[in-house]
Amino acid sequence: MADNLSRVDGSRVLADLNALRAIGAYKTGVHKPTFSEPHMRSLHWLAQRLAEAGLAAEIDGIGNVLGTSTKPGRKLLAGSHLESQNYAGWLDGPLGVVYALEAARVINADPNATGAVEVASWCDEEGHFGSFLGSRSYVGGVTEAEIDAARDRSSGKTMRDALREVGLAGRPRARCEPGRHIGYLEAHIEQGETLESGGLAIGIVTSIVGIWQYRLSFTGEQNHAGTTRMAVRRDAGLALARLCVEIDDRFPAVAGPRTVWTTGRITLDPGAPSIIPGAAEMLFQIRDDDPGVIARLEQLLRSLAADASARGPCSVSVERIRTGAPAIMDPSFQEAIAAASAACAGGRSLRMPSGAGHDAQILATIMPAGMLFVPSIGGISHHWTENTEDTDIVTGAEVLVDACRRLLAS
Amino acid sequence: MADNLSRVDGSRVLADLNALRAIGAYKTGVHKPTFSEPHMRSLHWLAQRLAEAGLAAEIDGIGNVLGTSTKPGRKLLAGSHLESQNYAGWLDGPLGVVYALEAARVINADPNATGAVEVASWCDEEGHFGSFLGSRSYVGGVTEAEIDAARDRSSGKTMRDALREVGLAGRPRARCEPGRHIGYLEAHIEQGETLESGGLAIGIVTSIVGIWQYRLSFTGEQNHAGTTRMAVRRDAGLALARLCVEIDDRFPAVAGPRTVWTTGRITLDPGAPSIIPGAAEMLFQIRDDDPGVIARLEQLLRSLAADASARGPCSVSVERIRTGAPAIMDPSFQEAIAAASAACAGGRSLRMPSGAGHDAQILATIMPAGMLFVPSIGGISHHWTENTEDTDIVTGAEVLVDACRRLLAS
Repeated sequence: MADNLSRVDGSRVLADLNALRAIGAYKTGVHKPTFSEPHMRSLHWLAQRLAEAGLAAEIDGIGNVLGTSTKPGRKLLAGSHLESQNYAGWLDGPLGVVYALEAARVINADPNATGAVEVASWCDEEGHFGSFLGSRSYVGGVTEAEIDAARDRSSGKTMRDALREVGLAGRPRARCEPGRHIGYLEAHIEQGETLESGGLAIGIVTSIVGIWQYRLSFTGEQNHAGTTRMAVRRDAGLALARLCVEIDDRFPAVAGPRTVWTTGRITLDPGAPSIIPGAAEMLFQIRDDDPGVIARLEQLLRSLAADASARGPCSVSVERIRTGAPAIMDPSFQEAIAAASAACAGGRSLRMPSGAGHDAQILATIMPAGMLFVPSIGGISHHWTENTEDTDIVTGAEVLVDACRRLLAS
Repeated sequence: MADNLSRVDGSRVLADLNALRAIGAYKTGVHKPTFSEPHMRSLHWLAQRLAEAGLAAEIDGIGNVLGTSTKPGRKLLAGSHLESQNYAGWLDGPLGVVYALEAARVINADPNATGAVEVASWCDEEGHFGSFLGSRSYVGGVTEAEIDAARDRSSGKTMRDALREVGLAGRPRARCEPGRHIGYLEAHIEQGETLESGGLAIGIVTSIVGIWQYRLSFTGEQNHAGTTRMAVRRDAGLALARLCVEIDDRFPAVAGPRTVWTTGRITLDPGAPSIIPGAAEMLFQIRDDDPGVIARLEQLLRSLAADASARGPCSVSVERIRTGAPAIMDPSFQEAIAAASAACAGGRSLRMPSGAGHDAQILATIMPAGMLFVPSIGGISHHWTENTEDTDIVTGAEVLVDACRRLLAS
């Protein structure tokens, strides 16, 4: 009779995901910045579901939700995050949390299953206040001083004020208990079109690429857009546009097959229609899982900037503001996901690196970690149109729960 | 004995300009956005100086200050503006107002001088709420509906709220009395380096160039900066940078000798470091006093945008959002300034178009108008370091007052 209980309930998984979508809904997606009202409502929603599943649930002093089990034996940690980018998709984060919840429901109640799944929702994976603050706090990587300094990137509100407003100020922050877990497993949408275009159901993540981020600052001369002749201008915005194009023309020859680079933000100062920009800034990012490739690209970036400065009329400086080492996913976790894919998804899986950062890369610094992907329709992500076919969502849940069983039994 | 009274007092002119600089001082410049506290204090300061000079002073329902004279005979209107760009220079605007005040003091009190100078400070020449709202209101070009819709471009505050807060709501707006003035004369800093580099004291403005402004909108596909391969990206920011560079490469062959073009503002949507911009926008401006040149450049702009759209991967649309006809300065006003320059500045003058827009172009639609420039150190303008040598300021005042005399006597 344990058989009914021990099966993934696909309609329950979809209902839970839709319940989370209804909290902070925006078009067909959600708007749930970290510590917003809908984000907090989602955390409380999860805590209640965890309690119903027989886990002890707590929301800690940095907004992590942890569901722990008293079932004896080996324990596997699984989860993802519940906040979203602004006006973004419904599955980025909640998918992995609901899968973990379903795994706990199915496995922890099954007397024939070894051990238990514990559930985590890591706060602020989307980086509204910082970089992986929730999971880094759990592994011991966040100081009180970092929290003191953290501010919402949109509103400028301090993290301390936000924690106070949502009632989390003064609560202790949960810390990983060494040796408690055999590892960490996270499911996520792919956020790319590799699986969909290959007709595949599951991505077995081999590594999470590192992110190197740079601030490029251009200095020219602010002046009047009507009275300053073209010949004497030092237009920092134009210098920025030229370097942007040059990077895009020159990077492909040096990049690896999976390297990506992005200019996500451009600011002209002062940014008025009748003023020649005297200063300009761009945020530039490179991702690859090969640090050798990154080193070559950074060298090229610096030499393009130096050439532009030397040519004039504006000067360019390059500052590296983020250095990301790639995180390798544990081979036994990759094997477990592959076996589960063979059993539950007809083997329609592919080993692939993750181009996006995930909390799994933080957990991987202290325990074995693994990740699986489900397809993203059209590869769309970080946008409210982000979506995955219901059948793919259910298959992903079945693979994740089966992988959990295998890891706990091994 | 009228001789003492009838001379320009250079130290009084400099003291007045420094008094205005002290109101809303920012470094060596000022920060006086329209209807800010320091802007309003400057208007009241002027009203008091006008009254002391024997003029009837009023601040009207749109923030114009008008000083009118009961002296019989011909009347010449002179002035400029008192608000500033944000964190900008101390002379852009106040110079022309203080010169006009000095002209009224010297000429109106001189029994040997024909007629009188009346003084105007036009509100919002710098366009915080709209385009030349004060002078356009005076010539009858601003409807109540336009004021209803106007908002501060920085804060978003409505003009109605701002007028209410500074106590101007409900006041009538002053309108030009047909036939009252023989014309309008305005002095301004050059805002370029032509006079300084030529060792000249006075620019005799021949025309004020038209400003054509465009909004270029780029549509791509918003996506994740880590998971989306370079080959399938539709990066709207990169498409914008490419067009920016192409414009700058292709415009010189079609432009006239004095044409200028500027990309003053760039916005990437959503503007986050890890998101490929799905949309981007640039504000682009062209200025010339030859509408034929503008027409050719607009055609080139539209064809570059169409080619970029056709090439893909992003689409580009071009919308003209401002159409400016050049304004010709009255030949008899140009002659009067030239004669005054010969008398007061050793003839160190040059006829030149104005690349910047000024209230004189609005007044020119209903009466003869003229403008003179004084040198800008280093050509710097719209920045707090903007400055002019004291000797050049005083020479400019002498030339303006002498030109007023000549115009009133002619």
